[in-house]
Order: sequence, then structure tokens, then C-alpha cells
Amino acid sequence: MDLKKHIRDIPDFPKPGIMFRDITTLIQNPRAFQYAVESMAERFDSVKMDAIAGVDARGFMFAAPLALHLALPLVIIRKRGKLPFETYSQSYDLEYGTDSLEIHVDAVTTGCRVLIVDDLLATGGSLAAAAALVERCGGIVAGIGVVIELSELGGRSALNRHRTESLVAY
Amino acid sequence: MDLKKHIRDIPDFPKPGIMFRDITTLIQNPRAFQYAVESMAERFDSVKMDAIAGVDARGFMFAAPLALHLALPLVIIRKRGKLPFETYSQSYDLEYGTDSLEIHVDAVTTGCRVLIVDDLLATGGSLAAAAALVERCGGIVAGIGVVIELSELGGRSALNRHRTESLVAY
Repeated sequence: MDLKKHIRDIPDFPKPGIMFRDITTLIQNPRAFQYAVESMAERFDSVKMDAIAGVDARGFMFAAPLALHLALPLVIIRKRGKLPFETYSQSYDLEYGTDSLEIHVDAVTTGCRVLIVDDLLATGGSLAAAAALVERCGGIVAGIGVVIELSELGGRSALNRHRTESLVAY
Repeated sequence: MDLKKHIRDIPDFPKPGIMFRDITTLIQNPRAFQYAVESMAERFDSVKMDAIAGVDARGFMFAAPLALHLALPLVIIRKRGKLPFETYSQSYDLEYGTDSLEIHVDAVTTGCRVLIVDDLLATGGSLAAAAALVERCGGIVAGIGVVIELSELGGRSALNRHRTESLVAY
């Protein structure tokens, strides 16, 4: 299946000159959505994993069904201030300023191998922060899986220590 | 299965005096998570549904696997400014001030029966807004399903036109 056919291009979002790749059309097609989840599992089928981590918020849509498909624990990595228990926090650069992601300190145990899942790899800043949070808990990043990779932004270089798989690339 | 055993109580979050019901411990247990998704499906098994709508952001974790379990389209209802295509917007009251939710104008077609899914029913403000957005698109709210209901906040009364099911109530 060509997943790109299910991804809608929206020009000038979030600002002029940016072509936004919209996965809301993909998730509205149950066959395409199921195919995306199963394809992600296949990309890492030779990799030992103990948990799936989803990145706030679109990452949850893919990480949750993948975790259930693989019968693995789902861990969430959230934007600042959203997690109720004690957290580790990791900031990352945005175009203007910084933002941060957080993880519960007990979300990942020492030596736990975690696959990090998000919808999009752009500059890699948020995914590098997510990887740092898994390691801060004592976990091991088993890999990083995204639905869409914007290749020209070079995000892979920010993640070069970790095996990274994307289902489609632009 | 007693899902409450998998939900962690965290006092004084997000502010003093509030007991937060934390589902991160539930989703870390694959059997409990799968049970929650299947239980939600069972609660509505006599209801005709054409799509599942997840509410930003924790709702996505339950709506996505439910949509795949039922082989139905997944629609997302997001916080302001997150959706790239043309949207309808609906504001709702918070304790101090207001916030708003948005839906893509083409996310739901006329007459489409939509089950709205979120993790939590508290005062019902955001879920009532989500229901209004489905109807704004011409859809029909087939029901509202939440994992946790905080009964004493009386949120059901804000949703009284719609069939509402919760997996656990406090």
C-alpha cells in the first residue's frame, strides 16, 4: 500500500511556505491505519523491545495500537506540565525559543528496551529529547519509528546513535 | 478485571486538593489496556457507529486502538491551532477562563454516527464541546465513552442528550 496516497498535503501550515503532511486522512481509513501500525511492527521485528513510548500528541495515535499489537507496555512522553507523577524533563530547541518534554521517573525501568514512536521526524529535536528521557530513566532506546520523515530537514543526524525507521519520506 | 487496580491515585495534581486518577499505570499493563479497549467496544456493541472520535490528547490513546479494533475511521478533535485544514471551533468553560476544541470541517460527513472517546469525564465541558463539533459537521453523536468518570463533578448532566458510558467511576 502506498501510504502517501492517504496523507494530505496542506500548504502554508503552520505558516507560509511550509507544506504540512496531514495524517488525519490516513487515520480515517481503517485499512491504511492498520497497515501503518503493522508496517511499523515489521520494521522492528528483529529488534528486542520491552516497551513502546509514544510522543505527545499525534504519536499516541500510532504508539497505542502498536503497543497493543505487540502486547507491550505503553509509555507516554508528554509536553511540560501534563504528567501528574514525578518527572524528568528535557528541553529542546524550536525555531524560536525552546520547549520541553517529560517522562515519569518510573515509566521505564533500568535496562528496559524502548521503541519511541511519533508521527513525524522533522528536525529531530523532540525525538532526540524523547530518547534522552528514556536514557535518563535508565532505559535503552531500541529504535525510533515515525510515520513520516521530512528528509530535507536532516533530522536523522540528530538521532544518529539510534536506529530510525520511517514509513514514508518526503 | 478491576481496572481501578491499574489506575494510580496522585494527590494534589494539578493543584492542591485534587486527586488525579493516573492512567499511565493502566496503559503500561498490556492486558489491562487491551481489556479497557475491548470493554469500551462491548459497552457500545448494540449501537450503530460509523466512526470513532478521540479527544486531544489522552483520548487518542484509547480511541486509536478502539477504531482499529472495530475497523472504523478515526477522527481527531484537537486543541486550538493544532489542525492544519479548515476547522470548526467550539469554546468551553474552564475553572478560570475558556479553552476551545477544533475539528476538521470534512472529518465527519452528514449523518455519520460518531462515538466520542476520552480518558476522563470530569465536568463534561470538553466532551460537550466535542459533541457540539460532531453535530456542527452534520454528524450524529452515537455515544460518549470514557475510561474514568468523576461522578461527583456531575459531568453527565452536561451530556444528557447522549448515551454516556464509563469503565470506572469514582
